[in-house]
Amino acid sequence: MRIRKTKPVLAAAVSALLVLFGLVFSPVHANQSDPLPSWAEGPTKSAIIQFVQDVTKQGGSDYVRPEERIATFDNDGTLWVEYPMYTQVLFAFDRVKKLAPQHPEWKTKQPFKALLAGDMKTVGASGMKGVTEIIMASHAGMTAAEFEKTVTNWLATHKQPKFKRLYTECIYQPQLELLAYLRANGFKTFIVSGGGIQFMRPMTLKAYGIPRSQVIGSSVVAEFQVKDGKPVLVRMPKIDFINDKAGKPVGIYEHIGVRPILAFGNADADMQMIEYTKAGEGRRLGLFVHHTDAKREYAYDRKSHVGTLNKALDQAAANGWIIVDMKKDWKRIFPFEKEE
Amino acid sequence: MRIRKTKPVLAAAVSALLVLFGLVFSPVHANQSDPLPSWAEGPTKSAIIQFVQDVTKQGGSDYVRPEERIATFDNDGTLWVEYPMYTQVLFAFDRVKKLAPQHPEWKTKQPFKALLAGDMKTVGASGMKGVTEIIMASHAGMTAAEFEKTVTNWLATHKQPKFKRLYTECIYQPQLELLAYLRANGFKTFIVSGGGIQFMRPMTLKAYGIPRSQVIGSSVVAEFQVKDGKPVLVRMPKIDFINDKAGKPVGIYEHIGVRPILAFGNADADMQMIEYTKAGEGRRLGLFVHHTDAKREYAYDRKSHVGTLNKALDQAAANGWIIVDMKKDWKRIFPFEKEE
Repeated sequence: MRIRKTKPVLAAAVSALLVLFGLVFSPVHANQSDPLPSWAEGPTKSAIIQFVQDVTKQGGSDYVRPEERIATFDNDGTLWVEYPMYTQVLFAFDRVKKLAPQHPEWKTKQPFKALLAGDMKTVGASGMKGVTEIIMASHAGMTAAEFEKTVTNWLATHKQPKFKRLYTECIYQPQLELLAYLRANGFKTFIVSGGGIQFMRPMTLKAYGIPRSQVIGSSVVAEFQVKDGKPVLVRMPKIDFINDKAGKPVGIYEHIGVRPILAFGNADADMQMIEYTKAGEGRRLGLFVHHTDAKREYAYDRKSHVGTLNKALDQAAANGWIIVDMKKDWKRIFPFEKEE
Repeated sequence: MRIRKTKPVLAAAVSALLVLFGLVFSPVHANQSDPLPSWAEGPTKSAIIQFVQDVTKQGGSDYVRPEERIATFDNDGTLWVEYPMYTQVLFAFDRVKKLAPQHPEWKTKQPFKALLAGDMKTVGASGMKGVTEIIMASHAGMTAAEFEKTVTNWLATHKQPKFKRLYTECIYQPQLELLAYLRANGFKTFIVSGGGIQFMRPMTLKAYGIPRSQVIGSSVVAEFQVKDGKPVLVRMPKIDFINDKAGKPVGIYEHIGVRPILAFGNADADMQMIEYTKAGEGRRLGLFVHHTDAKREYAYDRKSHVGTLNKALDQAAANGWIIVDMKKDWKRIFPFEKEE
């Protein structure tokens, strides 16, 4: 309103300058006219762009207010590589090996004995109970600050076996573009993962531009204690919440309190999140990454030991879920690949 | 970088225009030079402004990166009126009365019998067990959407007894200014309340400018179910988390994952949150509202049945906590009051 007080000569100067800026910056703008350059042209990319245009069009029938523009992304296999094994499981195994000298009892106690001997078959056979014991041994019994430091150091020093890069570098370029595109259109982007909430948080801002408070995951019980006169949070050896499968919509309800309008996963464990998302009123988008590129990444789905994608493949068409074919839909997979 | 390509004449035009804009907009700037007009001049206001200036000064010794600029506020008695009774408790009592015809067993079952007879002494004597039963009866056993609708309708139709205004209007003007001032300086503002997370969320964006995902509170267990082929979240009659006292730092850890640099409460139940905040490195600010204004609001502290402020008053000076004296420090209390 105040600009009305501006003298006509100033208004003219503003207009002229806007034009000049337009000219100066137009080459940049032209380069950026494709918000998803690593996505191949085709129905998947078109559906995403159409969706974003529709829900952000003021006065349009599909318009969604900014506070409702919530997009949720699974992490393992959706934003970063999960094959041949979830990064956090490798972290847990490494921690057990590192902590073994302080736990002589592990020499005879399963599943630790098997893990230390490299007998993964026995570790696997120990089931949920065994895995939980390994997670508790590696993720609990320390302060929040100590765990943060351990995770940060581990991620800074361990590399993905196939790509010989840090795990935090093995993230999907097309998804980075999609996250940025959504945010540029007023979306708030969240991670909703079965992985540990505090395991992910040290890396999400730098890797994905997602702040810690927008990361939702599984957790152990934390307890407020005063140690040597200093208040600390201690991670207790007790599962607090499993943010997987039917836990994902619950995690969304607790942490966000708004039903997403876009959800992106890659496994059957993401089905409930996507069902919940799609069941809301108005326009909704549900997507799954299908790992189809054995050469550039990995190819796995129905019978995989990680990121099993089976039922979702069968039910996708009937439910209007989009299956993103990594090999066909992604021109470039990793930031470290050369641009074409 | 690209601006280097700009011709000198354009650069000159830009500079000239910036100066012109400065002139055009300077009256606005002058009006807005006090970011906290409802706060009385004095050490409290000065301490807040100095803190914000220090932590946002690039290159300064107290500089805090934007992603670490987290401010947490209690709700009851800190952002809105909690006297003579917490709004949510009144909601729970009303719900029980409304639901009574569907629960003939309540006629003989405590604490419901006492509540329906208006015998608050017996309700109070039923203790934590009784109160929990009332909360479960009023807050669980429905879908998330049904609960949301009930809360929204209740808040739209019930008024605070002293001010004859909706509860959502009985919010503190100085705090609205502080929240806006913090956000304008790159802070992310959160509510960290003992109140129900889903009870607060319907009102926080409109009342305080705080989105749902930045609201942390107590919760009941939610369960993902498919009802009539439609995925829904059902609120179960089981406490999930009590976000009060030592629960507040835990809630902060789970939901934000970053230790706040500023925390604001009004009761002993906020001490742990403020201790946790102040125990971090670098500059930190911890504040309590002290309700000292019987005329314009209420006066209560050490022996109050709501918002008890006793230990914190004793320990404030030694811990460097700021006690905000409502009567002296707040020139205006509510948005609905006329501006002076």
